[in-house]
Amino acid sequence: MLFATYRIQARDEADARALATDLCYEQTAELPPDLVPPGIVDRYVGRLLALQPAGTGAFAARIGFPADCAGPDLAQLLNLLYGNILLKPGFRLEQLELPASILGRLPGPQLGAAGFRALAGIDHRPLVCTALKPMGLTAKELAEQARAMALGGVDCIKDDHGLADQPMAPFAERVERVQEAIDSAGAATGRTPVYIPNVSGPQERLAERAAFAKSRGVKALMLLPGIQGLDSLRSLAASGLGLPILAHPAGLGPFVTSATSGIAHPLILGTLLRLAGADATVFPSFGGRFGFSEAECRAIAEACRAPLGAFPAILPAPGGGMTAERLSAMREAYGRDALYLVGGGLRRLDPDLTTSCRKFLALVEEVEQGREAGSRRS
Amino acid sequence: MLFATYRIQARDEADARALATDLCYEQTAELPPDLVPPGIVDRYVGRLLALQPAGTGAFAARIGFPADCAGPDLAQLLNLLYGNILLKPGFRLEQLELPASILGRLPGPQLGAAGFRALAGIDHRPLVCTALKPMGLTAKELAEQARAMALGGVDCIKDDHGLADQPMAPFAERVERVQEAIDSAGAATGRTPVYIPNVSGPQERLAERAAFAKSRGVKALMLLPGIQGLDSLRSLAASGLGLPILAHPAGLGPFVTSATSGIAHPLILGTLLRLAGADATVFPSFGGRFGFSEAECRAIAEACRAPLGAFPAILPAPGGGMTAERLSAMREAYGRDALYLVGGGLRRLDPDLTTSCRKFLALVEEVEQGREAGSRRS
Repeated sequence: MLFATYRIQARDEADARALATDLCYEQTAELPPDLVPPGIVDRYVGRLLALQPAGTGAFAARIGFPADCAGPDLAQLLNLLYGNILLKPGFRLEQLELPASILGRLPGPQLGAAGFRALAGIDHRPLVCTALKPMGLTAKELAEQARAMALGGVDCIKDDHGLADQPMAPFAERVERVQEAIDSAGAATGRTPVYIPNVSGPQERLAERAAFAKSRGVKALMLLPGIQGLDSLRSLAASGLGLPILAHPAGLGPFVTSATSGIAHPLILGTLLRLAGADATVFPSFGGRFGFSEAECRAIAEACRAPLGAFPAILPAPGGGMTAERLSAMREAYGRDALYLVGGGLRRLDPDLTTSCRKFLALVEEVEQGREAGSRRS
Repeated sequence: MLFATYRIQARDEADARALATDLCYEQTAELPPDLVPPGIVDRYVGRLLALQPAGTGAFAARIGFPADCAGPDLAQLLNLLYGNILLKPGFRLEQLELPASILGRLPGPQLGAAGFRALAGIDHRPLVCTALKPMGLTAKELAEQARAMALGGVDCIKDDHGLADQPMAPFAERVERVQEAIDSAGAATGRTPVYIPNVSGPQERLAERAAFAKSRGVKALMLLPGIQGLDSLRSLAASGLGLPILAHPAGLGPFVTSATSGIAHPLILGTLLRLAGADATVFPSFGGRFGFSEAECRAIAEACRAPLGAFPAILPAPGGGMTAERLSAMREAYGRDALYLVGGGLRRLDPDLTTSCRKFLALVEEVEQGREAGSRRS
């Protein structure tokens, strides 16, 4: 059995029970109860295991689904969990517990938080990642940015999520030039940042693009599971390439913009991406230009670290809102094991990218030292 | 340029203008305006072309994006249209106009509505499709259902969308047995229904599964783009296999459950699927167990037929609510060029599946004849 909890908008408990029972049938037999053979009802229809009030006008329904209904594939697991039911308003998938038989078939993170940290060679503070942008620059111009950032000592440099395979900076040329620029800057400073190119495009070419990046010395990849499909993440993580994956939330917006439907933030942006193979998960931080609350962001970070079969923890990668004044609050909310994504907030510190990277890193170090001093005092 | 219209929740026109401008930057440069080089702003940042009131507290913003921002791939086109912006509440993508340069790179439907009809050999009324279910039956039991349905003369028989590759009825065995059963029934009646198996699972195996189905005589395929990714649909449509594709909406629910965010019904369930290669698009009909309104359903059907580059029209495939009493209203709303999906509503007509198929087809014919008689009288 696997267990899923849904928040259901309902008039009262009887209404909630009827809706939860509908859900059990909708996601499995997809026939009205009286048209389902009894042997099937007992063995393959979801079962309502618990129903509890969950705030005004809502109930939490814990449903058990036979593991066989999920079949061997991630795609059918997702379909079983939310395929049809989220087409109806008032149902929100909130929690998930999978048996070992299903966990064992999912790749999970390749390196996890500790492996990602080891790659960046930083252990004592959150990692800092900045982004090559804006879209429209040539591969050569982006490589110049990368060189300046690498000289500034930043830990990771990612493609902006909008850099795909456009004619201005085609994937192969960009990856080649940027990695070269970072490598040569790294040779000069003695420390080479991790470049994280965005692997996107036709699904039948993702593996080839990832392999090309690896052949050029790239050590980590970014993917947009909301655009490419969650199964693309699984496929890349299971491919044996060995490059950790930073999952970006583009395209997943519709799952989290409604409080009464979709999927809870920590489940879609934390647990499901982690199961599918993310080593780090990007999400818009509270205090930034998106509307995520601090509680939602903390819940995502918790889902990155909560026990999940034998899978390692992954890095929450909050983006946006990382101004100097807010770094202390970020550190408090996300802990040390996080990857800070900073674009505009970093560039704003200085017109020169090398200097702005140095300044931002100094701010992060300062917060860390302040905490250490504080803990020594207390 | 490509043009996209978003419905934006805003206090007033000035607020709407600011939000629309944010959108232009968010989806392209992803930097605050003052940090974007002027040459890039002019050439690669989205442009607000028109802003109009669109109901209480909302404005319709027409944005022009340079075609190069979409790059050569469907994935980046989707990312450009809604990647980050739908993570913010109050933005809904409603309309899309693509230039020939982008349309020419998308596969579009392989056969379209007329080709699908020709496959089924029915021209004078809506096509009728029923589904093999429930999940839990063996491949042999599903094949017996298929035989009974084929003897009843139904036009198409699809897998239920929850039939994947579960141990109860694994994909290969199911496809083989069901197609055999339908072929043998067809040999007896003189007319072989179109079997539409659900192609799902690991993305790297979709092409192989589709090819296997074709090798067993299958003439059409079903795919869940909301689960497998819209690019999986594109990939399958562009693969050269030549089997038309029925797109099922499982997993697309979060895009359409909020009136103030996500993507408008006709755009996500009509236009985008048609561009990506669907020949028919399933959606929950008004009057059924899902909450789609008649206006939303009619708009989806219109998007199936509206001019779209050189692409043929596709079949709207409304499901649910197809009871005898409602067939007339369905015919009125969807027209003749539609594919009716009927599961429970058909089975309810008779315990014997052959008889229930005959009865349902007779009802559809009756509505058609009633309309003809009506139009002769008028």
